[in-house]
Amino acid sequence: MGKARIPLIQALQDHRRKQPYSYHVPGHKNGRFFHSSLKADFQGALGYDVTELIGLDDLHAPEGPIKEAQDAAARLYGARESFFLVGGTTVGNLATLYALFSRGDTVFIQRNSHKSVFHAAEIAGVQPVLIGPEYDEGTGHAVGLTAAALEAALARYPEGKGLVLTYPNYFGVSLAIEPVLEVAKKAGLLVVVDEAHGAHFCLGEPFPPSALTAGADAVVQSAHKMLPALTMSSYLHLNGTLTQAQCGNVKEALAMFQSSSPSYLLLASLDGARAYLEELDANDIRSILDEVDQLKQRLAKIEQIKIINWPEERYHFDPLKVTIKSNTNLTGYQLQELFYQIGLYPEMADECHVLLTLGLGRGAVPQRAIDQLQELLSPHELVPEVKQLPIDISRVTRLHAFAGELAHMPKQRVRLQEASGRIAAETIIPYPPGIPLVLKGEMITERAVESIRRLQRAGATFQGSQPELESVLVTELEERQ
Amino acid sequence: MGKARIPLIQALQDHRRKQPYSYHVPGHKNGRFFHSSLKADFQGALGYDVTELIGLDDLHAPEGPIKEAQDAAARLYGARESFFLVGGTTVGNLATLYALFSRGDTVFIQRNSHKSVFHAAEIAGVQPVLIGPEYDEGTGHAVGLTAAALEAALARYPEGKGLVLTYPNYFGVSLAIEPVLEVAKKAGLLVVVDEAHGAHFCLGEPFPPSALTAGADAVVQSAHKMLPALTMSSYLHLNGTLTQAQCGNVKEALAMFQSSSPSYLLLASLDGARAYLEELDANDIRSILDEVDQLKQRLAKIEQIKIINWPEERYHFDPLKVTIKSNTNLTGYQLQELFYQIGLYPEMADECHVLLTLGLGRGAVPQRAIDQLQELLSPHELVPEVKQLPIDISRVTRLHAFAGELAHMPKQRVRLQEASGRIAAETIIPYPPGIPLVLKGEMITERAVESIRRLQRAGATFQGSQPELESVLVTELEERQ
Repeated sequence: MGKARIPLIQALQDHRRKQPYSYHVPGHKNGRFFHSSLKADFQGALGYDVTELIGLDDLHAPEGPIKEAQDAAARLYGARESFFLVGGTTVGNLATLYALFSRGDTVFIQRNSHKSVFHAAEIAGVQPVLIGPEYDEGTGHAVGLTAAALEAALARYPEGKGLVLTYPNYFGVSLAIEPVLEVAKKAGLLVVVDEAHGAHFCLGEPFPPSALTAGADAVVQSAHKMLPALTMSSYLHLNGTLTQAQCGNVKEALAMFQSSSPSYLLLASLDGARAYLEELDANDIRSILDEVDQLKQRLAKIEQIKIINWPEERYHFDPLKVTIKSNTNLTGYQLQELFYQIGLYPEMADECHVLLTLGLGRGAVPQRAIDQLQELLSPHELVPEVKQLPIDISRVTRLHAFAGELAHMPKQRVRLQEASGRIAAETIIPYPPGIPLVLKGEMITERAVESIRRLQRAGATFQGSQPELESVLVTELEERQ
Repeated sequence: MGKARIPLIQALQDHRRKQPYSYHVPGHKNGRFFHSSLKADFQGALGYDVTELIGLDDLHAPEGPIKEAQDAAARLYGARESFFLVGGTTVGNLATLYALFSRGDTVFIQRNSHKSVFHAAEIAGVQPVLIGPEYDEGTGHAVGLTAAALEAALARYPEGKGLVLTYPNYFGVSLAIEPVLEVAKKAGLLVVVDEAHGAHFCLGEPFPPSALTAGADAVVQSAHKMLPALTMSSYLHLNGTLTQAQCGNVKEALAMFQSSSPSYLLLASLDGARAYLEELDANDIRSILDEVDQLKQRLAKIEQIKIINWPEERYHFDPLKVTIKSNTNLTGYQLQELFYQIGLYPEMADECHVLLTLGLGRGAVPQRAIDQLQELLSPHELVPEVKQLPIDISRVTRLHAFAGELAHMPKQRVRLQEASGRIAAETIIPYPPGIPLVLKGEMITERAVESIRRLQRAGATFQGSQPELESVLVTELEERQ
């Protein structure tokens, strides 16, 4: 198709064309001043890094080009209203939970949600009830909630007000979400979906269906992950199912959690990313996915690795994500190191896998590098496939201690072997992918300790004060039910 | 001096030099994909917009180049610890209040603080006691708290736990803060200073003294406002007066409020801004300030405007801020329009003034533009100076309704003329400069209504659902004391 409209980018370029003299923030004055090491590289972008000048609108009270840009996104995604976020999906999660729920509300949260979802729950003061996801047997990856799991949770906690889902998982895979959404809507739950990895799902097949069209009330997407947008730029879409008042509360919360000086670089990239999606036609998408297939075929020739092909009849999956499993004694982390050696940088690794995230454009399949990969891997002996032990997470669990209470409880550090049966006073997060294994306030099970040990052996680090997790912070209370 | 170290920029440039092939987020893949309207301009910067790859550290668990870069900032500013912020001073305010105080704590807040301070107080669940600032008679601008004002507040609210100051004001002006800090420290208060406009005060005289060296416990600075750094990039400095546990809580809060995918563009600019400051010598600063003097002298020749010269014996003031007062019937807003006409973009305007914010570098004083300004202003008749009526704000006031309570109170909209004596259910914020005139939960006084009407006549807009403020949201309760 022809060129899509770009109202905000246009306004910024019109402003710049005037060759304005800056007596305003930021302090680089349209790029006149910048550290010598960066000036040349940043020069082109600095002319867009402006403040809320006349004609450039205001993210927190949009009525000009920012409003037009957000409206264009709403039209593309089928939202009642769309917001440009400059604090990542994190700030979208913070604002929606804060705005849509009251302190003390019981909210069902998918157990393997990103840590920002749990932070949002703590700050909003809601009471999380964790629902364990289904696992893919082959990879051990969590693939989403079943309708039955939500029904079980609702039976135990009929006071539930909301549900936070993550769709798809980090690897681009998920069970269909329509079934669990249906149960949620019938029970009158407000549904927030962390669709961080799905900003491109609006393109339609062969990409998975979007959460918004499936009926979610609010959806947050990391535009920066899968679209050509700057890091930290995201979208928040609100469904027509929300009331005017609820939308207003979300808007207010966004103004509280985000900078009053939002970055026009990020905003411009959000306008551009939406236009980029509009300008992709079926042929473009076909060419992109053909290239991904070529890459997978080439990698599949390397015996020491296996390309995971997700069963269509069971899952939705994102063709732009390529999950590679190690067929040798090499862990995923070690396999990732080999990729680094030949200049290929994967998205992440776990115990057994490496994840490649592809982009929405053509790029030469780096044939030579893949040949080198084959060479590097050839000395490694094939080993029989070991069935994945999923990280054990109970099906429906309340947090034993509400975050606020924990702050005032006496705590102690215990060695990992003594942690079983204790209430965690810190969240244990292996990174990547930044998903909590044990939550602050949750009881530490024996199997959780086993999972931690397995990850330690495979080389993962843990966010927080103890990257090697020699000890764990727990409350001084013993196990209580 | 010679070149300062740039550990993070170096690491990013080393990475880029490897010509890495990106199979990771963000979706632009080191700039291979981007909307056609932006690609050329953003190309140079996109190679720096990466994710937490090997060797590029992690803002939330820094131990490599990000740690080195933050340590370099701590050394320059004299902090125990310094943090790079990617969510502006807003996120610094959010994190410090959340981390250093408990829900229900009484915290003294300077009345004219930026709205982000009040948002932070609401989210942290503290009980604000507002202390009215002193005013500069000539301009009507708030210039800071006196020791006496804090003493009066402490006498009424001995349970106070903390104090949040804003230093300097938007115009770069302030009373000395040492006296009020002394009272605060003697009373055992934790002091957080919003030093958004003072990231360059570490340069020493003739710039004002920095809040950190004056004894504040935590200081947040908008690097992007006065330094050559990207919008939304800020610093948070912690004093040696804080305990290890308090520092840890702040770090944890920063990880909750900020994106888990912080922007390396912003982080690189923070490293560069610190190096830029280190590389400025006395001669550079002298040249910069001489040029500012030339600008002021040239502007002073225009009869229709007056350059405000702040009395040294009364205030600290930032020489990089030039406050211009209208000597005609033109309001500050209308004066700002004339600046726009000749391609000069001021920072902001209020009823009577225009503010120019200069940068830390040489820039031709735009002589021709200023001649044009003189021409544009010449038809306007001079009028006698009208004494500024400061915005009336009571000396020490509690909020009548805690933010959480307000959410559940029935509300109604009333016309402005009926608002006096009612409890505001929304914060009334004229923009610029984004400082609340009436706070949510505060009683609306007759004089507040007068201030609103004066601002409306002068052309200000109000953030929120009613930019013209035809009506105000209040609780259904009548005035209660």
